[in-house]
Amino acid sequence: MQGDIQRLIEIVTEEVLQATGPAAAPERCGCHAVLYECCPDRLRGVLDAGATRLGLRASGGTTRDVAALIDHTLLKPDATRGEIETHCREAIEHRFATVCLNPCWVALAARVLRPEHVGVCTVVGFPLGATDTDVKYYETRRVIFDGATEVDMVINIGALKSGDLRTVERDIEAVTGPCRDCGVTSKVIIEAALLTDEEKVTVCTVAKAAGADFVKTSTGFSRGGATVADVALMRRVVGAGMGVKAAGGVRDLSSLREMVEAGATRIGASAGVRILQEARGDPEPAAAPSSY
Amino acid sequence: MQGDIQRLIEIVTEEVLQATGPAAAPERCGCHAVLYECCPDRLRGVLDAGATRLGLRASGGTTRDVAALIDHTLLKPDATRGEIETHCREAIEHRFATVCLNPCWVALAARVLRPEHVGVCTVVGFPLGATDTDVKYYETRRVIFDGATEVDMVINIGALKSGDLRTVERDIEAVTGPCRDCGVTSKVIIEAALLTDEEKVTVCTVAKAAGADFVKTSTGFSRGGATVADVALMRRVVGAGMGVKAAGGVRDLSSLREMVEAGATRIGASAGVRILQEARGDPEPAAAPSSY
Repeated sequence: MQGDIQRLIEIVTEEVLQATGPAAAPERCGCHAVLYECCPDRLRGVLDAGATRLGLRASGGTTRDVAALIDHTLLKPDATRGEIETHCREAIEHRFATVCLNPCWVALAARVLRPEHVGVCTVVGFPLGATDTDVKYYETRRVIFDGATEVDMVINIGALKSGDLRTVERDIEAVTGPCRDCGVTSKVIIEAALLTDEEKVTVCTVAKAAGADFVKTSTGFSRGGATVADVALMRRVVGAGMGVKAAGGVRDLSSLREMVEAGATRIGASAGVRILQEARGDPEPAAAPSSY
Repeated sequence: MQGDIQRLIEIVTEEVLQATGPAAAPERCGCHAVLYECCPDRLRGVLDAGATRLGLRASGGTTRDVAALIDHTLLKPDATRGEIETHCREAIEHRFATVCLNPCWVALAARVLRPEHVGVCTVVGFPLGATDTDVKYYETRRVIFDGATEVDMVINIGALKSGDLRTVERDIEAVTGPCRDCGVTSKVIIEAALLTDEEKVTVCTVAKAAGADFVKTSTGFSRGGATVADVALMRRVVGAGMGVKAAGGVRDLSSLREMVEAGATRIGASAGVRILQEARGDPEPAAAPSSY
């Protein structure tokens, strides 16, 4: 099994990064200086030719289409019960896909949101990903018990950078396993800002093999958030059958559209209400929250 | 029990913040604009009169005294196995109190450090503190099983700010309980940069009542690290019988000394080697790491 994944990673890396040998530098586009295959303008050309994702085009998409893409996110550690309740009410009002909250608020959010058919997304091993695998397993089962419908887990970044793919794989499976058993959506946060392109390809391949439903760019707590190039690369690696979530720094409608054009099928944002106001053409959208 | 703690908090708040009634503003010193009772210069006066802490004076202290104060810290999520091993070797060489590492590295560090009588410190519910209480309990038992000798846990900040002290107390006890059972040192991280002075007093009082061994200023991952005023306030609240750990932003010998003068008995620092080089009077100390 381990050998199979290693071989799969080599095949995908070779294909996506267009490497012809260990010394070959992958070809990069002239406009963004990213890997040619992942250039968002190249993808935009494909989209303009007819493809649309979830009904959202660069030039349009209804407010409901936009809301259905967003995990309405409030992960700051000092959020109060009152702020969490307000956040849940906003999600019901605007019909966001989910609210994304820290684990200690899941039970409260599930009581409020389940009757309204709004999802409850939470985070595991967050935001460093450096807890033990069996703690992530325990935490996953706990948040599912509390009512989470989606779980975003952070990979063990140090193990990936140490070349210990067996640990990375087992760590992801500790979350995707219980999620699959319980019909809960799993997302694998790769924290792209800390990874090389080769590491991004590797971990997306491992996440796909581990049965994750999504790969996700960022926690929003590291030194960089989602980029169009990362979303495009991740989409290229996981193919059409998996979700890609762009999170961290998506604060307006144009950023959201860029991410969707590059291949994102879900957006993590604390500025969801502002983005919807923009989509509706409100004259003065509320200021975007400064923190994730 | 809950009523007792609430009463204790009221007594300590009244004493430390010198409040004479709900409308009274606590008196502040002219030099630092902090609460008068917590002014570091006032404490420095006490120290200069003869008191020293762990043999370290503003004007001196051996290199060994300085090393024995430091939790040699490497918590960045992308640290590799090689970096962790180097970090442990540095701790042995310089005789730091402990290494402070993420949970996934505890077993490795314990194998290396236990024969050398260097402690292994790790973190629980880190850095947001917003996981479930029983996950913190599970994680604590797991890291103790792996060989941790000290556990630094993050409080549930949102619960504190919501006035839910019962949750804050149970959450702390979920870590201090197993630590006490196993002879492991427990530290309670209050993330002072996110709290008001009243909240700092409250949570230090709760931590003391819950049997914690230390209170600790910061995770190093929030918007501010340790300050002299916070250390002084925390020392004043917990009294002489508990430890106070200053962490986050202590990057040189003079900062370390300021913290010790204000009441710190342990320092969390990623720049430990540089600080020791400074203490030895090395001509060109190594550059301090930019990240915690």
